[in-house]
Amino acid sequence: MTQSSLPFTQSEMHPSRWGNPALAGPLPEAARGLVEMAFGLDERAAIEAPAVPACGLGDDVLSALRSVLGDAHVLLDDDTRRLRTRGKSTPDLLKMRAGDLSDAPDVVVRPGTHEDVAAVLALAIEHRLAVVPFGGGTSVTGGLAARRDGFAGLVSLDLVRMKALVEVDKVSMTATLEPGLRGPEAEALLAEQGLTLGHYPQSFEYATIGGFAATRSSGQSSAGYGRFDALVVALRVATPRGELRLGSSPANAAGPDLRQLILGSEGAFGVITEVTVRVRPVPVEKVYEGWRWSSFEAGATAMRTLAQAGLLPSVIRLSDENETAINLAHPDSIGAEGAADCLMITGYEGEHDAVAAKRAAVTAVLEGLGGRCTGEEAGAAWAHGRFNAPYLRDALLDVGVLAETMETATFWSNREALYTAVKDALTAELGDGAIVLCHISHVYETGCSLYFTIATKGDADPLPQWLRAKAAASDAMMASGATITHHHAVGTDHRPWLTQEIGELGASILRAVKADLDPTGILNPGVLIPDA
Amino acid sequence: MTQSSLPFTQSEMHPSRWGNPALAGPLPEAARGLVEMAFGLDERAAIEAPAVPACGLGDDVLSALRSVLGDAHVLLDDDTRRLRTRGKSTPDLLKMRAGDLSDAPDVVVRPGTHEDVAAVLALAIEHRLAVVPFGGGTSVTGGLAARRDGFAGLVSLDLVRMKALVEVDKVSMTATLEPGLRGPEAEALLAEQGLTLGHYPQSFEYATIGGFAATRSSGQSSAGYGRFDALVVALRVATPRGELRLGSSPANAAGPDLRQLILGSEGAFGVITEVTVRVRPVPVEKVYEGWRWSSFEAGATAMRTLAQAGLLPSVIRLSDENETAINLAHPDSIGAEGAADCLMITGYEGEHDAVAAKRAAVTAVLEGLGGRCTGEEAGAAWAHGRFNAPYLRDALLDVGVLAETMETATFWSNREALYTAVKDALTAELGDGAIVLCHISHVYETGCSLYFTIATKGDADPLPQWLRAKAAASDAMMASGATITHHHAVGTDHRPWLTQEIGELGASILRAVKADLDPTGILNPGVLIPDA
Repeated sequence: MTQSSLPFTQSEMHPSRWGNPALAGPLPEAARGLVEMAFGLDERAAIEAPAVPACGLGDDVLSALRSVLGDAHVLLDDDTRRLRTRGKSTPDLLKMRAGDLSDAPDVVVRPGTHEDVAAVLALAIEHRLAVVPFGGGTSVTGGLAARRDGFAGLVSLDLVRMKALVEVDKVSMTATLEPGLRGPEAEALLAEQGLTLGHYPQSFEYATIGGFAATRSSGQSSAGYGRFDALVVALRVATPRGELRLGSSPANAAGPDLRQLILGSEGAFGVITEVTVRVRPVPVEKVYEGWRWSSFEAGATAMRTLAQAGLLPSVIRLSDENETAINLAHPDSIGAEGAADCLMITGYEGEHDAVAAKRAAVTAVLEGLGGRCTGEEAGAAWAHGRFNAPYLRDALLDVGVLAETMETATFWSNREALYTAVKDALTAELGDGAIVLCHISHVYETGCSLYFTIATKGDADPLPQWLRAKAAASDAMMASGATITHHHAVGTDHRPWLTQEIGELGASILRAVKADLDPTGILNPGVLIPDA
Repeated sequence: MTQSSLPFTQSEMHPSRWGNPALAGPLPEAARGLVEMAFGLDERAAIEAPAVPACGLGDDVLSALRSVLGDAHVLLDDDTRRLRTRGKSTPDLLKMRAGDLSDAPDVVVRPGTHEDVAAVLALAIEHRLAVVPFGGGTSVTGGLAARRDGFAGLVSLDLVRMKALVEVDKVSMTATLEPGLRGPEAEALLAEQGLTLGHYPQSFEYATIGGFAATRSSGQSSAGYGRFDALVVALRVATPRGELRLGSSPANAAGPDLRQLILGSEGAFGVITEVTVRVRPVPVEKVYEGWRWSSFEAGATAMRTLAQAGLLPSVIRLSDENETAINLAHPDSIGAEGAADCLMITGYEGEHDAVAAKRAAVTAVLEGLGGRCTGEEAGAAWAHGRFNAPYLRDALLDVGVLAETMETATFWSNREALYTAVKDALTAELGDGAIVLCHISHVYETGCSLYFTIATKGDADPLPQWLRAKAAASDAMMASGATITHHHAVGTDHRPWLTQEIGELGASILRAVKADLDPTGILNPGVLIPDA
């Protein structure tokens, strides 16, 4: 078992902003002019360190927790509790900026082992405490905003101490990881063995292995490495009713695949304490390049062609006309009919020969379909800035601009209708002044994701404004027969739409599994599972 | 919607033997000598058309069924009921050959639509009838041998009328199929559109789309086309509590993937009434070739290398030394240390250029690892006889020889230990006279299947003898940490081992879902779900 020796600690994350405070900052000067032109500048101060409500737990509960975990791992101080309050969705940020800490946990506990987790769950049942498993704190769907009504208190179960690489099997090419490892920590431990997971969502620098599994995360290299749910071969879970170990083999016919019930369970069925994942050799070569397409449609058709030919690069993403214009800082071309073209990024990771062979085959297909390769500059620019977008959202909030993303997925034949429906719904709700950008970043033989970025001038009361826009887009996704989320999970924010997607009976199944594994309902109440 | 016009009907299947009676026959002369030498010949007659117990249902029930389905689709005759009694496992065949028809259904009903199925389930609840969904009748794990205790009768719900190709989406490359389509029927309908499913299990000629989904079937081309569960993008299910529709997108993060709960549910959660699958273009070229390896280990390492390099052919299978010797009819080399080598079959299906490129790349890897290509003859021989093995089992039973298969899967690092453990367990139980062969036919980046063929001289009472051997092998699989079945489902035969594989809590989840979807427990009672 190898422990991570990296310097990351949870407290690096700013309580009301994304990421490392040292890397946050005001809007870059170049963007400032653009934003002023589009929306005006409306400086808005955030309450920096709002007061945390007093811990509502009695000494008996705290003593019991301390006797299980030791005094050092039962934390009551304001900073720690503030940092475990909600996640990083726009509603989460707006509430925090307004000083609303009503969802703060009463206590933050740090189990070190599976057995510690089980013991905390037992105490939570005994004392009627709601438990919120906490990994990187990067949820953008309200996955950490549990309901506390009916409970004696709210416990944030921080997995920050569970950062071991438990086992590596180089023959089977699998690795067993503890849930608290952040993306870079997991990659660093695997790299010591010459291995990589290849999972790079935008939240990579903060999000954790347990969170990737619990939310069915999908990374920017999903075309080459697979979605996180496709990487998982085995799971260990601490539930209120005991331990669950799943994953006897890569695939089997021994009844339903229960791993797929834990993946995406968002802490509502149990706490994931070990994840065994497929790994790959560290790539010898990584190369990213840019392609230009005459339209979003032309680029999307090229992506579909590659996916259906089994010829996907490791990374493939395509921006629509507006996103291309914004990314390339040609604001004049935003929305101008016919003026813009679309940027695609392709990336290849692996051994030299494999990269060269795949790159040649993909290049032949893309050129045959009318794509124009612009070389490695655009690819390098994308790779350089790939984890930075969330910082910009905070800087925009500081000048009164709401900027957020929404994503969905559908089958190829429905792609264009879904794209139009969501764009129209957002524009109808937010007005023509809003900017709506879109890209495709995850592709399958049968379909793809659509990832929208929206920027709009904030109202005096931006939270309800944002919730109306979110609802309009979500309704459009459902009306189009698409999913409410391709890779950001359900949380509390998507929960009102889940029953529409999986049906009353699908929701009933989730409740039945919840009632079986968590009969007293202590785990992340109000998250994921629709009410009856 | 396109209906199948193929001449298949369920009654082609022999009631106590595999497949088409016209194709069944005695042991081929060449094999007869070999069998005589190994086991002796002990001719055993089967009772050809055993008497069927009288239908135990009252006129009220039958009238109700007739009013829903019409008189023509409520069948009580002996031939029809005999043909819907159990499946084709060795215990099933032995019981039928001995004249035991105690599991015969009281009535066979043939719904034509999803709504018909729902109506039959409603009547079954009202009249307390157990319902066994029936597709091709090819289960080899007792999946059709439902428990009738506690029920007023047993209904075989035959999906033979539900054979439509409901929809084809050539942009998304998906097709929606009804569950009663057999393999060749589905392929014929798809071929009219230039498409293929590419799913060819040994039961292909008889097994159905619904059965493939309900049992997580895996075909001989799984390396190229994927397991059946990987082909499914959407499902429609009639449950006792209503309709379930799943599959909003190729993949998503909208909670647990409930499709994976229906796949492998073996009729215990609901009746699958539509399956939407990923399809591919009909391959322009199919080529199969043989390779020889110095050992099973060397061949398995080559398979692992290909899988982990992302370089799998459409078909790849490897026989161990004994299976190679038997297949190539060199009986002298069976078991002779060092004398034998191992046969691998590789197959490529697709467009000319893609086949050529893949074949060249695979050939380079295999030659580099010491493989010797023997050309297309061995491949063609395999492809020619690929669906015929089950006929041989009946001919062997006729001369007193038990021959059956068992299969499992594990991670690569455990392959050799599992292989040895299962072989040793079978030899210990059946004695040195038993022949145990093995092949690998399904490979993944992290592991592979192991498929054993066993032949042994039958006792005077072969059923308990067989059950002891099955138990010994199953115990060895569990002790090795492998799965009880890679692609033959749980049924009744594997059910005693399922809890060991998924844990008490995993079994509890299955019961909870069962109780939610089928609260009165009418669906396939005693199949799949472990008792509490």
